Amino acid sequence: MATSGKVKVGIIGSGFEADIHAASFKIMPEEAEVVAVASPTRGHPEALAKKYGIPRVFHDYREMLKEKDIEMVTINAPNHLHCAMTRDIAQAGKQVVCEKPLAMTLEEADEMIDVCKKQGVMLAYAEELLFTPKYVKAKQMADQGAFGKVYLVKQSEKHSGPHAGWFWDVDKSGGGVFMDMGCHGIAFCYWFLGRPKIKSVYCQMATYAHADKTKGEDNCICILEFENGATGLIEDSWAKPGGMDDYTEIYGTRGVSYADLHMGNALPTFSEPGYGYAVEKAPSTQGWTYPVFEEHWNYGLPQELDHFARCVRGKDTLRSTGEDGRLVQEVLLAGYQSAGTGRKVELPFRPKGVKKPIDLWWKPLSARAENA
Amino acid sequence: MATSGKVKVGIIGSGFEADIHAASFKIMPEEAEVVAVASPTRGHPEALAKKYGIPRVFHDYREMLKEKDIEMVTINAPNHLHCAMTRDIAQAGKQVVCEKPLAMTLEEADEMIDVCKKQGVMLAYAEELLFTPKYVKAKQMADQGAFGKVYLVKQSEKHSGPHAGWFWDVDKSGGGVFMDMGCHGIAFCYWFLGRPKIKSVYCQMATYAHADKTKGEDNCICILEFENGATGLIEDSWAKPGGMDDYTEIYGTRGVSYADLHMGNALPTFSEPGYGYAVEKAPSTQGWTYPVFEEHWNYGLPQELDHFARCVRGKDTLRSTGEDGRLVQEVLLAGYQSAGTGRKVELPFRPKGVKKPIDLWWKPLSARAENA
Amino acid sequence: MATSGKVKVGIIGSGFEADIHAASFKIMPEEAEVVAVASPTRGHPEALAKKYGIPRVFHDYREMLKEKDIEMVTINAPNHLHCAMTRDIAQAGKQVVCEKPLAMTLEEADEMIDVCKKQGVMLAYAEELLFTPKYVKAKQMADQGAFGKVYLVKQSEKHSGPHAGWFWDVDKSGGGVFMDMGCHGIAFCYWFLGRPKIKSVYCQMATYAHADKTKGEDNCICILEFENGATGLIEDSWAKPGGMDDYTEIYGTRGVSYADLHMGNALPTFSEPGYGYAVEKAPSTQGWTYPVFEEHWNYGLPQELDHFARCVRGKDTLRSTGEDGRLVQEVLLAGYQSAGTGRKVELPFRPKGVKKPIDLWWKPLSARAENA
Amino acid sequence: MATSGKVKVGIIGSGFEADIHAASFKIMPEEAEVVAVASPTRGHPEALAKKYGIPRVFHDYREMLKEKDIEMVTINAPNHLHCAMTRDIAQAGKQVVCEKPLAMTLEEADEMIDVCKKQGVMLAYAEELLFTPKYVKAKQMADQGAFGKVYLVKQSEKHSGPHAGWFWDVDKSGGGVFMDMGCHGIAFCYWFLGRPKIKSVYCQMATYAHADKTKGEDNCICILEFENGATGLIEDSWAKPGGMDDYTEIYGTRGVSYADLHMGNALPTFSEPGYGYAVEKAPSTQGWTYPVFEEHWNYGLPQELDHFARCVRGKDTLRSTGEDGRLVQEVLLAGYQSAGTGRKVELPFRPKGVKKPIDLWWKPLSARAENA
Repeated sequence: MATSGKVKVGIIGSGFEADIHAASFKIMPEEAEVVAVASPTRGHPEALAKKYGIPRVFHDYREMLKEKDIEMVTINAPNHLHCAMTRDIAQAGKQVVCEKPLAMTLEEADEMIDVCKKQGVMLAYAEELLFTPKYVKAKQMADQGAFGKVYLVKQSEKHSGPHAGWFWDVDKSGGGVFMDMGCHGIAFCYWFLGRPKIKSVYCQMATYAHADKTKGEDNCICILEFENGATGLIEDSWAKPGGMDDYTEIYGTRGVSYADLHMGNALPTFSEPGYGYAVEKAPSTQGWTYPVFEEHWNYGLPQELDHFARCVRGKDTLRSTGEDGRLVQEVLLAGYQSAGTGRKVELPFRPKGVKKPIDLWWKPLSARAENA
Repeated sequence: MATSGKVKVGIIGSGFEADIHAASFKIMPEEAEVVAVASPTRGHPEALAKKYGIPRVFHDYREMLKEKDIEMVTINAPNHLHCAMTRDIAQAGKQVVCEKPLAMTLEEADEMIDVCKKQGVMLAYAEELLFTPKYVKAKQMADQGAFGKVYLVKQSEKHSGPHAGWFWDVDKSGGGVFMDMGCHGIAFCYWFLGRPKIKSVYCQMATYAHADKTKGEDNCICILEFENGATGLIEDSWAKPGGMDDYTEIYGTRGVSYADLHMGNALPTFSEPGYGYAVEKAPSTQGWTYPVFEEHWNYGLPQELDHFARCVRGKDTLRSTGEDGRLVQEVLLAGYQSAGTGRKVELPFRPKGVKKPIDLWWKPLSARAENA
Repeated sequence: MATSGKVKVGIIGSGFEADIHAASFKIMPEEAEVVAVASPTRGHPEALAKKYGIPRVFHDYREMLKEKDIEMVTINAPNHLHCAMTRDIAQAGKQVVCEKPLAMTLEEADEMIDVCKKQGVMLAYAEELLFTPKYVKAKQMADQGAFGKVYLVKQSEKHSGPHAGWFWDVDKSGGGVFMDMGCHGIAFCYWFLGRPKIKSVYCQMATYAHADKTKGEDNCICILEFENGATGLIEDSWAKPGGMDDYTEIYGTRGVSYADLHMGNALPTFSEPGYGYAVEKAPSTQGWTYPVFEEHWNYGLPQELDHFARCVRGKDTLRSTGEDGRLVQEVLLAGYQSAGTGRKVELPFRPKGVKKPIDLWWKPLSARAENA
Repeated sequence: MATSGKVKVGIIGSGFEADIHAASFKIMPEEAEVVAVASPTRGHPEALAKKYGIPRVFHDYREMLKEKDIEMVTINAPNHLHCAMTRDIAQAGKQVVCEKPLAMTLEEADEMIDVCKKQGVMLAYAEELLFTPKYVKAKQMADQGAFGKVYLVKQSEKHSGPHAGWFWDVDKSGGGVFMDMGCHGIAFCYWFLGRPKIKSVYCQMATYAHADKTKGEDNCICILEFENGATGLIEDSWAKPGGMDDYTEIYGTRGVSYADLHMGNALPTFSEPGYGYAVEKAPSTQGWTYPVFEEHWNYGLPQELDHFARCVRGKDTLRSTGEDGRLVQEVLLAGYQSAGTGRKVELPFRPKGVKKPIDLWWKPLSARAENA
């Protein structure tokens, strides 16, 4: 493997997220290039390869891992495969970028961190909100003292349902919208506030619109309490019609900031005939819509992947680590437990033997086991 | 000079625009790199070189032109120097990127085009609005038929006064805010509508806030009529307090779109203590403000310069040409003439011997000469 | 007729505007009550009377004028009837409220003013923008010095076409959208700036969307120059799809204010099934819409009519007079003349014998006659 | 007492709320008129009387209650006085309008309802959000089916601290911001959803900015669960700098609506010199601000009081009752209990002997007592 020049990247997956990864490396091509893609469904990785000019295609990622020149592999696969893939990648001596959420269980998260440490490879946790330009601006202002003491961070992501079909199956995903998008808000609040310890988690969950498709919750409100006294309020939904929403609000004793990522950036547009593309999950481009522009860029996806490549070359220090992902995992577990008991759950909360987080919503640990 | 690899760039100037060029090449480093900067004021180019890691510094741009490896030179200098610099650059066999407006007179514009053609070099006219992501999205929608027939394009840029001190001096700038920012709107409407011929120009100008500093107008309303029946409405001001505004509105028979570049992208923010930076020309960061993020990117400046470098390598076809700049120049002249007469001026309008456009506001050609 | 208690009102007309008048008096019932409605079309005034509990119905307004107790009559009829109706009402000794625009010609406007003066009755010119709460707030701030010297007032009203079918017929309306809605902007800028003399008028007009229905312009840009140096920029359109827009922007040397009446007040709403009502001219209530609330109130219509009733009782001084309407009429004429010549037209501009304003667009007076 | 004509009103109080009542009756004078004001502080009721032309002034409200013609009395006094005042008013045979929150305890709320029932007078609970025009529009759309099944109602009110000094004193107020403004959100969500039973309440509370002034919480997040499955999310703050915010968001399976009362109605304004008034709690009128217009009207305050007067005359059916106030009281108690235990509290929750709601935050009932 090279130690200079562009980082050679292999992508696992050929769906929505894999496409974003391939596109992102094209948008910021300075530090890395995608040289291979692996996905088991015949035709899918071929299509992605064609679309982005990726030279090599595999149907078994393990075959791809044998390619000598590949230095970094990004995982875009159902959550229940993250751990095994990470292990394989690390053992092949390659750097790991794992999409969110990190894993199904804390045991898996621990294993992923351990194997990467042991193999001396990076375990990057792909939380793009830490790179979203609008949100980064809010963070910069906070760090410059704009808001006095920040006491409340709100983060919300809402749309009409997951991109990937497997997310409806809680055995593959581990849970509903809290697993899928709550992980963003948790990581974001934590990072925004400067990584203070998380004291407690409270969640209210329900399945409003998609009970026919999934056992997972499609709406979640989550309250985090941090040791520095600040609060995080996270809202996520798969039950929101009309196109995707993502926003962050910062409240401090001396200031506030409202960062609305979609409607707050878009061009309010009316069109009778419609047009190409408005925004993720937009049901139509006719009538009034809120088209966004440079969607990947405004999420920070190219910046995130560029950063990971720079970390591989030692140019940057990893902003979003496996340890961050593990903490998010712990909060996810505590959140489901809380939704199951109607009580806030104190951290640390590291129950053993939980197969998937959502199990705790349906059958929470007893109060005794919780505090064990 | 190389014919592959990164395009080596020399920057003329060390002020506001030169800094933007240097920053932009850093943001998109794939296609080009800045290897030299030239500016006569001792200390200034050195400071820019230090800030952006530019290896070579010159105090006479003609010395810089002797550097063999430099392939492309960008001009960030007072308007009255554009022509001579372009001639020198072209004669040195290097590609030219000239900041807006192109020149002081049509004669200069013609000369610039001619010399570049003769020398076989590119003359790129640096109109960034053709690359502004939000506006490009509007253009894409228009081209996809979103608005039916577009009959009105509005473009506006307003703030409290020019960046560069020399712009107050009409002998160096050629005019006021219409020269400085009207050129953006003219080029934008023309490009947006697909470059139909411009039939007529009407301008209303006044000096409201800066009569103590300049003879130039600090507020201008301009109406363009195009041969396809569409109208352009351009508003520009140096008399607008509260920070910069830039917006575009598209009206068609079957749709509309409103693209507000600053307040429409920003994070509405309240801060008692203030913070680092809000937006161009913002008078304060305390109280309520509209901070923007990734300002250069959202203007399209890195994308514009990346595009010019790609054109040098034959990867793209030039989107904004010297001929575009010359047309803008003609409209600028017609606009000042119109403001002087209170009548719309029909194009073609190519008066000879006009030293600077604003002269026509003060002393318009007679109707007879106008139509000659 | 009473000299105290509620002012008894008769309404002429039974269409869109008449309905607004009846509704408005219901919303603010303290000062006036509608006791009669007159309209020639069988069934129409009856329906209005039923809807609003109006006790008396007439098919000839001259019959209604014989009712002793009626003190104030509001005219909601095609423009070419305003003058004769005003004459009849005044001669019946009743107070006149005339919808905009005042008349077809300056001669009519003069006659209306004269007959009311002679009969000792009020001639109120129903310009509601002088009562629009959001715009009144802007005016209050301006008068409190918020903006320093105001140098530019923008006013715009745009939708997809007139409410009343007769407005397509220029023989009844006198012109297109400039007659229909330009009159709002003219009166507003004039009032906002404190009624300085108007120096000149420039208009650019076109028919973009409705050439099949009308000879009138359906889009107009108008620039007013005032003697105090300020500028008015008025935009009106009948060619704007997607629902009505109305906004005002104020620019001063020390401040700005943006007052968006519809989208800037509305509840951004997404609905798959749709709902009752969004906003004037909204093509649909499905998908994304901008529903407004208390539409009449937010235009200032009840406040306007309440004010007129108060003036009848001597409690208020008339804010919008026949003289205001006449000045607007003069500007309308000058505007069409300007659109016809491509030149700004200086005021006073009082051509004789013009049958309807739009005639001057098609066949402007010669420059000589213009200045006569 | 009259049974027709305008309802004669006496106002108890002379502070912020009393002023709003007096102003509101002036704005909608059709149904009622204020004939007396009572407040113990010498000079205060006199000033209010002078400002609004109120003929009679009292320093003891019990004296005012002896006035025969007064039919309706509005209570604008510290919370701990509401019950005794209501009793006195009812026993004087007059109609009661009580400002929010209804009382300090459930026992008081019961007594207030009972005494009014016994005396045959109305007990109107002054919750203005049920009359806020923008929010009423949202409710109308919901009732028209715009959103499918509404599953989440968000209501938020935030500013920098209470109007009345006594609210800092929890012995007079009963609690902090949840008592002061949470009551709005509770009543609103309940009404919006059609008054389904409330199943549970969860609150997270903290004192971030005003620990020096009060023992009360200055920030609260509250989650309501309704028997129909819907959720209410209420946020209130006294710790929000930059001026008041009030918004409501509606989420349904087939639609959403965002109703922002202040920034979403205001005129974004920049002013160097400043001007008269921007919005409640705005720290300045200089720089960028969000001035509102017709503030009382846009809250629905005149409409609310007009409605109460109409109810007295039998023209309307009471929209906001003592029973509503009592339910809010129960939720307030449950909310503080929840904040004290970190658990959601199931309704009914009617603990006996609680002196003031906030006591339950500091010293919650045991789980056993809670469920008793």
